[in-house]
Amino acid sequence: MEQLSTLTGKYGEEGDQLLFKILNSRLHESSKKKELMDDFQRSLDKNTNSEMLTERALRYDLTVPFARYVVMHQHEITFPFKRFQIQPVWRADRPQKGRYREFFQCDADVIGSTSLHNEAELVEMTRNVFQSLGIPVIIKINNRKVLAGMAELTGRPDQIIDLTVALDKLDKIGKDKVIDELLNKGFQKESIELLQPIFDFNGKLPEEAISFLEKWLSNSEIGMKGVAELRELISLTGTEGVELDLTLARGLNYYTGAIFEVKATNVSIGSIAGGGRYDDLTGIFGLPGLSGVGISYGIDRIYDVLEESGRWNEIGTKGNKTLAMFVNFGPDEARYCQKAARELRLNGVATEVYPDPTKMKKQMSYADSNNIPFVILIGSEEMASGLLSLRNMRNGEQHKLHLNQIIQHIKSHLD
Amino acid sequence: MEQLSTLTGKYGEEGDQLLFKILNSRLHESSKKKELMDDFQRSLDKNTNSEMLTERALRYDLTVPFARYVVMHQHEITFPFKRFQIQPVWRADRPQKGRYREFFQCDADVIGSTSLHNEAELVEMTRNVFQSLGIPVIIKINNRKVLAGMAELTGRPDQIIDLTVALDKLDKIGKDKVIDELLNKGFQKESIELLQPIFDFNGKLPEEAISFLEKWLSNSEIGMKGVAELRELISLTGTEGVELDLTLARGLNYYTGAIFEVKATNVSIGSIAGGGRYDDLTGIFGLPGLSGVGISYGIDRIYDVLEESGRWNEIGTKGNKTLAMFVNFGPDEARYCQKAARELRLNGVATEVYPDPTKMKKQMSYADSNNIPFVILIGSEEMASGLLSLRNMRNGEQHKLHLNQIIQHIKSHLD
Repeated sequence: MEQLSTLTGKYGEEGDQLLFKILNSRLHESSKKKELMDDFQRSLDKNTNSEMLTERALRYDLTVPFARYVVMHQHEITFPFKRFQIQPVWRADRPQKGRYREFFQCDADVIGSTSLHNEAELVEMTRNVFQSLGIPVIIKINNRKVLAGMAELTGRPDQIIDLTVALDKLDKIGKDKVIDELLNKGFQKESIELLQPIFDFNGKLPEEAISFLEKWLSNSEIGMKGVAELRELISLTGTEGVELDLTLARGLNYYTGAIFEVKATNVSIGSIAGGGRYDDLTGIFGLPGLSGVGISYGIDRIYDVLEESGRWNEIGTKGNKTLAMFVNFGPDEARYCQKAARELRLNGVATEVYPDPTKMKKQMSYADSNNIPFVILIGSEEMASGLLSLRNMRNGEQHKLHLNQIIQHIKSHLD
Repeated sequence: MEQLSTLTGKYGEEGDQLLFKILNSRLHESSKKKELMDDFQRSLDKNTNSEMLTERALRYDLTVPFARYVVMHQHEITFPFKRFQIQPVWRADRPQKGRYREFFQCDADVIGSTSLHNEAELVEMTRNVFQSLGIPVIIKINNRKVLAGMAELTGRPDQIIDLTVALDKLDKIGKDKVIDELLNKGFQKESIELLQPIFDFNGKLPEEAISFLEKWLSNSEIGMKGVAELRELISLTGTEGVELDLTLARGLNYYTGAIFEVKATNVSIGSIAGGGRYDDLTGIFGLPGLSGVGISYGIDRIYDVLEESGRWNEIGTKGNKTLAMFVNFGPDEARYCQKAARELRLNGVATEVYPDPTKMKKQMSYADSNNIPFVILIGSEEMASGLLSLRNMRNGEQHKLHLNQIIQHIKSHLD
């Protein structure tokens, strides 16, 4: 949750519409009900925010709140400052596959350094993350300065935002509609034709793309700066799994340099990570000149990819799963089992005691459904002898063993 | 985020007031602005919810959303169903020490079993959790049926909720004000005097408390049921770190059996965990007769306790901290360092390369501020010879070593 004023105007016009706003509390106790109604009426008529009605909103991303945090704590922070953060964000969008109203982002940022080594480390980290998860990806890279160069090329350097907002939709609405949007925004037909090469620029090697840009944008100072940054970044990261995408724009207004987007190549779901460099995001909060770069992983979509590619069963079940379950034959037996369970747990074996003395069949089917590999049966005989029955649920084998032997047996099956 | 209707009425009158409600989106596009204004006016006058204005709210706890989830997925779930969940919740309260508007709860619940073994496991888990964290705690236990018995004793069996709501404030407002509140709610003065023993019942052993209750509540069937549950639970958990608190009430309406509250004994901050049994929480959502029990840990307060007791420095820094930093002497050196850093990382040594070729002093002070134990210095000489300078930041010692020796050296310092 953030102050509404912290978030408005940071994500473009469309972003403002997608903020979830929180109703102020205890409005019925207000002594200014008439003013409140008038203010609400105004906000309805003019589509403005009413501070009397709503002062707070839900996070739209983690980057703007991070900039707010950095400015608030600037005197306690050592720069360059690296932070990672995993938290939910919200967007008042129409929910659909891969598009959620509430989802978790996992962000890594470095602020207070302009070195391209930071971008290179984020690319390397991204390669490692998706390699560990077994998701084949392509990391798309572009640079906002190159896009600014293109805006200059079309004779509309002031309309860099209109250009990026339109280009950002290329995946969703296609080239023709992007061109329509550019025409609507006042770009000339002839200028737009000048952009043709970037639409055609698919599947080329990064080196080729950079050589092309160097000639194409040679008249734009900012464009050439972007090309130089791209060249340097690619030389630091190498080209493995990396693709230059000259139509990559990223919708957010605050990017000023390198931009990234990560796509899974085995599942069709939009980007699963994205980010870029922002030269002056903290400036809005009163601390200008602090450049940062970050990347954000969309955990929900990454889950979708793992699920859809059949990898989730392998990865998602690696956590602390129950290894042993004691069957419950009655109050005395269950009490005995609880003590034994404590021993197993102390030895690192995650253990459950079935809580109710219900039918054996029901208890075994619980163990089955939860993929518990071992079941331990303790009746009055076992309690007397201390020899407990251990059943391997995978192969049905059953042995009579002492508790310490059971612990050894289960642990040896762990490896 | 939940449907507002899922949350209202589940946390008592005060809870309803503490819900953060979310303004419906795109109200300015509504074609029914007049109705919207009228509805808003009505909600202001009568303190009701306006569905036209707000349909959703932020989670107040994790238990009610869990019950909603269980009912929605009842056909896919194997009961008894155990789940843990760590997520933020929100309360529109006045923020103060230990009381936050947005905080993380960590919940563990078992639903679909009435066995007291579940309660016993939650108590055991709680002991283990706080022992691992090094926080000395007392686990307070009571039972809602015992409180119901008390309500019967005062002649107001129907006013069990008024009784618990009032008792729940004992810590905050003191005994006299609790009695005032009971008088206001229509309890007779003589009846309230009957409750005197529970106020006096401090520091007694659980066995004594239970024997007392057995006589005191012998005329109340439900009270005696509660006493029997308490006796059974204490016999399962033992009395270590456990205290019977007959004034413990828990504010939430949905509890029906055992209730818990955990207090740190070394820091004064209110309860750091709490929970209890709810016999019919899923009933509100259309699935009656499914009993559950759970406990919720308040992570923010637990952090406060660790911080205040000086334990955070020990525990909070156990994560993946940077072990080595390469000093950046220039573009060529930095490029060399990035490759070396990759080797260190592959060998499990968390490593940074300082991103900018700034003054040595600034780079060393960054390593200092971030408690990085080793710094590696690579200039042109080191690049030529492959013998890199490793400085131990704790004692200032510096050695010339090959990269693989550096990795061994740092890893040996890990243990």
